[in-house]
Amino acid sequence: MPQWDHRADVVVVGSGGAACAAAAAAVDRGASVVMLEAADTAGGTTRRSGGAYWIPNNSLMRAQGFTDPRADALKLMARLAYPTLYDPDPPRLGLPKLQYDLLAAFYDNASSAIDRLRQLGALDPIILPNYGYSPNPVTDPDYFAELPENKAPYGRVLTAKSPPGSTEFPGLYLSEGMLQHLRSRNVPILLGHRVTDVLRNGRGEVIGVEAEHDGCTRFIRAKRGVVFGSGGFAHDRDKLRSHLRGPIFGSCSVTTSQGAFVDIGGKTGAELGNLSNGFYYQAALEDPAAHEGYVVRPDAHVFFPYGDSTILVNKYGQRVVNEKSPYHVRTQSHFHWRQTEYPNLVQFMIWDQWTANEPTFWPWRGVVPLPGQSSPLVIQAATLEQLAQRISARLDAMRGLRFLSSNIVPNVRLSPDFVSSLRATLQRFNTFAATGVDLDFHRGETPLERAWQGPSRSTTGNRTMYPLSPNGPFYCAILGAATLDTCGGPVIGTNAQVLRPDSTPIPGLYGAGNCIASPTGQAYWGAGGTLGPAITFGFIAGRSAASAALLPD
Amino acid sequence: MPQWDHRADVVVVGSGGAACAAAAAAVDRGASVVMLEAADTAGGTTRRSGGAYWIPNNSLMRAQGFTDPRADALKLMARLAYPTLYDPDPPRLGLPKLQYDLLAAFYDNASSAIDRLRQLGALDPIILPNYGYSPNPVTDPDYFAELPENKAPYGRVLTAKSPPGSTEFPGLYLSEGMLQHLRSRNVPILLGHRVTDVLRNGRGEVIGVEAEHDGCTRFIRAKRGVVFGSGGFAHDRDKLRSHLRGPIFGSCSVTTSQGAFVDIGGKTGAELGNLSNGFYYQAALEDPAAHEGYVVRPDAHVFFPYGDSTILVNKYGQRVVNEKSPYHVRTQSHFHWRQTEYPNLVQFMIWDQWTANEPTFWPWRGVVPLPGQSSPLVIQAATLEQLAQRISARLDAMRGLRFLSSNIVPNVRLSPDFVSSLRATLQRFNTFAATGVDLDFHRGETPLERAWQGPSRSTTGNRTMYPLSPNGPFYCAILGAATLDTCGGPVIGTNAQVLRPDSTPIPGLYGAGNCIASPTGQAYWGAGGTLGPAITFGFIAGRSAASAALLPD
Repeated sequence: MPQWDHRADVVVVGSGGAACAAAAAAVDRGASVVMLEAADTAGGTTRRSGGAYWIPNNSLMRAQGFTDPRADALKLMARLAYPTLYDPDPPRLGLPKLQYDLLAAFYDNASSAIDRLRQLGALDPIILPNYGYSPNPVTDPDYFAELPENKAPYGRVLTAKSPPGSTEFPGLYLSEGMLQHLRSRNVPILLGHRVTDVLRNGRGEVIGVEAEHDGCTRFIRAKRGVVFGSGGFAHDRDKLRSHLRGPIFGSCSVTTSQGAFVDIGGKTGAELGNLSNGFYYQAALEDPAAHEGYVVRPDAHVFFPYGDSTILVNKYGQRVVNEKSPYHVRTQSHFHWRQTEYPNLVQFMIWDQWTANEPTFWPWRGVVPLPGQSSPLVIQAATLEQLAQRISARLDAMRGLRFLSSNIVPNVRLSPDFVSSLRATLQRFNTFAATGVDLDFHRGETPLERAWQGPSRSTTGNRTMYPLSPNGPFYCAILGAATLDTCGGPVIGTNAQVLRPDSTPIPGLYGAGNCIASPTGQAYWGAGGTLGPAITFGFIAGRSAASAALLPD
Repeated sequence: MPQWDHRADVVVVGSGGAACAAAAAAVDRGASVVMLEAADTAGGTTRRSGGAYWIPNNSLMRAQGFTDPRADALKLMARLAYPTLYDPDPPRLGLPKLQYDLLAAFYDNASSAIDRLRQLGALDPIILPNYGYSPNPVTDPDYFAELPENKAPYGRVLTAKSPPGSTEFPGLYLSEGMLQHLRSRNVPILLGHRVTDVLRNGRGEVIGVEAEHDGCTRFIRAKRGVVFGSGGFAHDRDKLRSHLRGPIFGSCSVTTSQGAFVDIGGKTGAELGNLSNGFYYQAALEDPAAHEGYVVRPDAHVFFPYGDSTILVNKYGQRVVNEKSPYHVRTQSHFHWRQTEYPNLVQFMIWDQWTANEPTFWPWRGVVPLPGQSSPLVIQAATLEQLAQRISARLDAMRGLRFLSSNIVPNVRLSPDFVSSLRATLQRFNTFAATGVDLDFHRGETPLERAWQGPSRSTTGNRTMYPLSPNGPFYCAILGAATLDTCGGPVIGTNAQVLRPDSTPIPGLYGAGNCIASPTGQAYWGAGGTLGPAITFGFIAGRSAASAALLPD
């Protein structure tokens, strides 16, 4: 065995939501903890996030009188996570045992984990507020409030408190709160420590890690277990190309999300799972174009295209998706393969002068600047012909730049009939807007879409649609698929211990968050659909590792 | 080290096309070889295949005067394999170095590998014949003959000779020919030997394998190397659900395709790649319904929906894809995600009495019985209303049955407006058929589609479309996505040696065929798009292993 540079009962890899929850839970059980963070700043992607966490049956919602029955919650989660296996009738809902058990473990532990972290002072949650257009006075609707399995369409989304007037994403405060708690418990958070491998004793148990720090190799002893909460592979081009369901241009995940745990877990004998899935959203491409795929500017995140008349079209000038559907869903329209191409690989978000002039500060305004502000991500043109010319020039300017598993390839060009097709598309959309019924894509049929539309001129009852002015000027942003992060990696059991293909656990090895095969399957259940499970399973992992027997050298 | 039960210079795992080519190449280099086959029959999926192999610039095509320039062939392969990276201008066409080098290695070795195997007597190829409707007298068009990068649209597809009058798929003869050659060289082919792990010496080099045989563990020493040609994970439900791009009901792959090399290679430290991809086709679901996802009946394979008026619709009664596009392409329409479901998860192939009466024996007749024959896969009805009722009854009968990563889940039901929508769909299709122009899906615009249409009544110049009779009877088969096999696993280098994430090779470990990260990326370049690369890289693997230095115990 090497000379150990550090020793602790539990070694936690990473410092985002999953890692912090693991460290807090382990300390809470009396364990000594050391955290290793690859970056020079603690907080991981959580620090850059919206700060929401989706927690079924949480105590804050119950205090408001909301209920969230277990059987229905499990059905909702199963349906969205494993839609081609879900069946409401059999005891395990059509799922394999492990996948069902992980959903049940999430429901059964999520609320108590949050409550304990709150008691400890690591979290200070509020229910996501009503932003002004919700049918419910307390809070906005769940993303899939419309599904019959959803018996708790309000109250599952908790979020961090932001200081009044802050324009930062609340994830900053979520992250700082957890880190502050750990610092108060004297947990060392070693920055610039990139974990490169685990170390095992003669029995094959994981008893520590090897990390690179400042050009040197460091060895850190874990007396009871190692918990990985090290992020996905959002910035590893090879893994994205090899594993993901579709082509990806960008990610808002921190650039240390390089898939370390896929490699380390894999060679330690872990089964790998859920590798094809990520948590998706759309990004305005000229920002990640400047950073090799890293989405940096807050306004480059297109969570919900702003504006009642705003539409998305592909290079053929055709609408291809319900523009108001949740970002994780909508973004999968980029993945559609037809003949010899991805026809929707790049999409064009188009809005009119009314939307540009609309003065509301709104959380999902995104790429649409407030009146009087300008943005390098926005193309402006007097006519559709001029818009097409300017889009083409912007596409040409991005050619040859490096994104992630997708670039602006030669066939990403506006089709020759783009303008005439777009004109026909606008006419058809405007007809739908006039009646409030989108015959093609069912825009505005769910509670979420109507609430997160924000301001609207519509009087049809469908707040999400209003005719787009056929006269210029027109505005456009060029969008591509991006990830919050990926969510595949080593498979865990219900105690967050990593499993081998034969379902036996690897002693000493735990994981949670985006670095493991997420219990969420292919779903993103709602706002906080990544952090809710990450914090919950991080908490379980830290508690499990802290309670494990001492592992000999 | 264990007591070795068998010893050879090269141990080959599997007995399909990749494995046989590896064994033949190793023997050709003077190595002793032992082959291990998990099943009780040798031949793997190759034995069940169409027997074609796609070989660019092969000597048979050159003998016919066809040319296949290297630069263009690499462009075609790169474009289809990595469509979101492909760029014709940079030296490596926009691809990562390894992916480019593997395509180049394929082009550079494929023809000579086939020539050598032919000289040895292991292969006896012919150019795929002209089935009667090709513009070229010698042979039918390549699947992507229409692409500007395709400078060799005729001649790349070789196939095995079948005895006159045989109704077996030619893969039987391809497989038997290779196995017969190996038997003539006294290569032991140990049946019922399921390899469960590799064995390594103190230096970490792979020096043998562990196999389960008849309830006992056997140890087989490989003095120079182990070559895996053991098939993909087409029948492993967990891996399909976790890794694949879309939901899969069935596979024609042999049921031993359980992804052994993903697990074994992974824990040996291999990088895993291309896990999200498979080679796709459509299967008539009532056959795999009876065999837990295994597609058994030859007529359950829907490579090209037969009939000039035949259409495919989804549960909403809508066409969703060009019915005549290549199976690998067309099948990806099943993977389209919209809102909270896969709207095209199950599709309905509908034909009329003319097609039912059409008397031609045609290789792609598939699920349409010859006149006078009947099939349990076919639903017949006098009217569209009756057809909808009978489809619904068949769907109900398949509920609760186990397929692969997809089942007939509760939302797979005909929509209430299926009949009226289908009627409108037929009218629109018939309008297109009358003019020969499919404004929605561009059916019949490529040379392949026109040639493999088979018989046609059309006089518009578009052989693939003729109006479907609006009067009954109607016929229908229920289709879902299936795989020939998956094509992800350990990453190999250009000498077919398995690589670690840091790109160093794992000494003694080689792979080829569907068990590795296929150099084909997401493409299926044409008929034989799996066996062409499998045989070529199998040959390279066998040659590399046979030439490697002796590995100590």
